[in-house]
Amino acid sequence: MEIIVASRNSAKVAELMKLLSPLDIKVLSLEDFPDLPEVVEDGDTYEENAVKKARQVAEAAGKIALADDSGIEVDALQGEPGIKSARFGGEEFTDHERNMKLLKMLEKVPDDERGATFQCRVAIAGPDKLLKVVEGICRGAITREPRGGGGFGYDPIFTPVEYHQTFAELSPEVKNRISHRGRALEKAALFLEGYVYSERKE
Amino acid sequence: MEIIVASRNSAKVAELMKLLSPLDIKVLSLEDFPDLPEVVEDGDTYEENAVKKARQVAEAAGKIALADDSGIEVDALQGEPGIKSARFGGEEFTDHERNMKLLKMLEKVPDDERGATFQCRVAIAGPDKLLKVVEGICRGAITREPRGGGGFGYDPIFTPVEYHQTFAELSPEVKNRISHRGRALEKAALFLEGYVYSERKE
Repeated sequence: MEIIVASRNSAKVAELMKLLSPLDIKVLSLEDFPDLPEVVEDGDTYEENAVKKARQVAEAAGKIALADDSGIEVDALQGEPGIKSARFGGEEFTDHERNMKLLKMLEKVPDDERGATFQCRVAIAGPDKLLKVVEGICRGAITREPRGGGGFGYDPIFTPVEYHQTFAELSPEVKNRISHRGRALEKAALFLEGYVYSERKE
Repeated sequence: MEIIVASRNSAKVAELMKLLSPLDIKVLSLEDFPDLPEVVEDGDTYEENAVKKARQVAEAAGKIALADDSGIEVDALQGEPGIKSARFGGEEFTDHERNMKLLKMLEKVPDDERGATFQCRVAIAGPDKLLKVVEGICRGAITREPRGGGGFGYDPIFTPVEYHQTFAELSPEVKNRISHRGRALEKAALFLEGYVYSERKE
């Protein structure tokens, strides 16, 4: 079976491929389909965005597609930036600029009030219909400065519960096991494994 | 699709049925197959026992079977009773007697050294082969006395991390979401959902 990971973010595609690698599934990325139209992420929820991306890519490519949408919800900002995480501060911002802006906004927030939740939804769609949406959540806190060179996005300023290191400092193995995306993808992988298993048996 | 839950423990069967209820799967128990031989749980690991039970029932009944094996590993007892949890103290012991024996053994263990891990493995087998084994783990601590009337087994003396109530005091909804068995069954359910989904499409 082939499945398309509906993303052009190479770090994210690599992370997704790694998580899906134990399965007997060939993972393609949007780089393999350069002519597919860009999907506009204008949904009101993570689920809406993930479903929209997975559906559009699956329909255009005629293959099963997997898409995720995620965001970070900061307690002290009443859940912001949330669904707007990827565009926080403006489309032209780099990840680092976004992180510095968020840290600046939280400058006066004391250590015990810096809680945050990483949210992720992963949608799996077939060429003709949606198959499944799964959820992954990771609770943690926002640091006072960026730390670590791994990962992407808000990884350098987020320490998951029970860890002192940020997502950008933790090894990819540890991060993928406990992260919002890792947890959602573990569920997606189990669904796909059952799906593939059943197909193989025919 | 029909699936047999390979257990005669009615509390466990009820818990399993509840967890599998969102799926388009008819859940049967061993009560529906009174003539199936008893499976001897003599494996060295949870996985071995779960696989053995699932396989024997699936082969005898000619249907997909799901079996679990679980145990509690107490830090202060170097992981005991572990694989022997269900027979700890002797086959004739009641759950309550088992709990009292364990509490007695831990009488002098201070509060901050009473950590324990609930382990669970769930195996899914078809009539002709094994399909999948999944894992669920729940970390917590052993109380000083039994509390609560829900659940079964060691539930009254185990408080999961981040909760003050025992598994026997927590609502079934909360327990099933965070417990070792709940987590393993969530994974099993995702696998089965993909499996069923693929079958339905034919």
